[in-house]
Amino acid sequence: MQAIKKISIIGVGFMGGSLALSIKKSFPQISVWGYARNLTSYNKLKKLNILDKVECDLKALVSDADIVILATPVYLIIKYLKKIANFLKKSTIVTDIGSTKELITKYAKIYLPKNVTFVGCHPLCGSQKSGANFSDPNLYKDAICIVTTPFKKYGVSIIKELWETVGAKVVFISPSLHDKIISTFSHLPHIIAFSLINVANQKILKFAPQSFKDLTRISASSPSVWKDIFLTNKYITADIESFIKFLRQFQVAIKKQDQKTIVKLINEANKKYSLFL
Amino acid sequence: MQAIKKISIIGVGFMGGSLALSIKKSFPQISVWGYARNLTSYNKLKKLNILDKVECDLKALVSDADIVILATPVYLIIKYLKKIANFLKKSTIVTDIGSTKELITKYAKIYLPKNVTFVGCHPLCGSQKSGANFSDPNLYKDAICIVTTPFKKYGVSIIKELWETVGAKVVFISPSLHDKIISTFSHLPHIIAFSLINVANQKILKFAPQSFKDLTRISASSPSVWKDIFLTNKYITADIESFIKFLRQFQVAIKKQDQKTIVKLINEANKKYSLFL
Repeated sequence: MQAIKKISIIGVGFMGGSLALSIKKSFPQISVWGYARNLTSYNKLKKLNILDKVECDLKALVSDADIVILATPVYLIIKYLKKIANFLKKSTIVTDIGSTKELITKYAKIYLPKNVTFVGCHPLCGSQKSGANFSDPNLYKDAICIVTTPFKKYGVSIIKELWETVGAKVVFISPSLHDKIISTFSHLPHIIAFSLINVANQKILKFAPQSFKDLTRISASSPSVWKDIFLTNKYITADIESFIKFLRQFQVAIKKQDQKTIVKLINEANKKYSLFL
Repeated sequence: MQAIKKISIIGVGFMGGSLALSIKKSFPQISVWGYARNLTSYNKLKKLNILDKVECDLKALVSDADIVILATPVYLIIKYLKKIANFLKKSTIVTDIGSTKELITKYAKIYLPKNVTFVGCHPLCGSQKSGANFSDPNLYKDAICIVTTPFKKYGVSIIKELWETVGAKVVFISPSLHDKIISTFSHLPHIIAFSLINVANQKILKFAPQSFKDLTRISASSPSVWKDIFLTNKYITADIESFIKFLRQFQVAIKKQDQKTIVKLINEANKKYSLFL
């Protein structure tokens, strides 16, 4: 990381803002810049005082940056990959923290010049909250960060060091395996939370116990972030199908008062959960 | 509660054992007896030392009890209502903590003699753990306890006082409204947790983040308890249907890359969740 003088972040929301704070805490010598897409955003970010510089000009932001971090929703990451491509100096490391990786990796290859490197990342942490005002310098502590670019590629060791220094544990897997695993572990659970709370009649919500509020906590997540995730993960519709299959097995067994099947389904679930203990 | 000298519990597992400890803590003058259905259970309960007396004879257990608490899975509650009916003295209060209330209330009316009273209860707390060895004297502190027998009926004020003294907040609703609400807030979430963990391929479980483990925690719940709950809640199959309807809306919208519908569904979920804040 000694060679890194300037890091620029595009998308200084909760995740990007937390990363800015984490980097400043771990590497006080690095200058951390952030992008403001308009005057409102500029004034807000200036006031929060989490960046060394708030910059409205994309070229000024990235042209001498050693690392550019894209921390917007997925489709905006793709848009900014295209927008910044011609401003980057040689050997810049472009990285992202988007929640799906196949499409982003594909467009990074298409848009970025050959003399810069792209490292796809996805730190598995976050919150249903959004906005830089919630930024937390310890957000990435103990989080798993999936890196989908092979270690041998130029720049990856630097990004790995960055994540490890802010407290994350780095795991390398391919973009497609990432999207498949995360579909089951995060994207399907979000579809479930959004759907579960929609089942509840508004009139009965006042009776909701804490356990139900905990289960649906992620249903407060942002539509702008999550529509992009759902639209860019090609494994999610099959996971929904497989999930519905299990729900139907329960439903049919309950209708038929078929104890045996219900016990079998619960036993299988018990057995799988026991692997976590 | 001054008139209460002896309380007998049938089903001294995690919930019943915790209730025994809570009662002893709040009412040290009351003798709390528990039922052991066989010698193994007798020895285990004796060793745990959470009861004033462990009793294998059902008649001796309940015949001079002022309150009998049924804390087994739902179908066993119904079975014990029948078994104890002829042993009870006049004015005994029979109560239960079963998770569905319509069927239990129906059989209490059928089996119990006219000179004893039945009070249906469901404390909204618990754990995926089972077994009296996990008993916790503070389990019912701050829990909501739903009582499905009208307050005016003999014995209900005593049961209300019992729950309030062990720290619970009592809410009165009818057995059918109870089953309908709890279907959405607890029984459907359990079906979801059992099904969600069954979606995950065993090979990828080692990658599961903490959030997924939290969401599926209740998938470790006991088959013997939960099969009875699912089979005796007549609202659950309709809730599964309604839930699948929302899942399908997401699935179709994702397949069609229909941003507008996805955003609409997430906005509705956001709006409902905001009622909890």
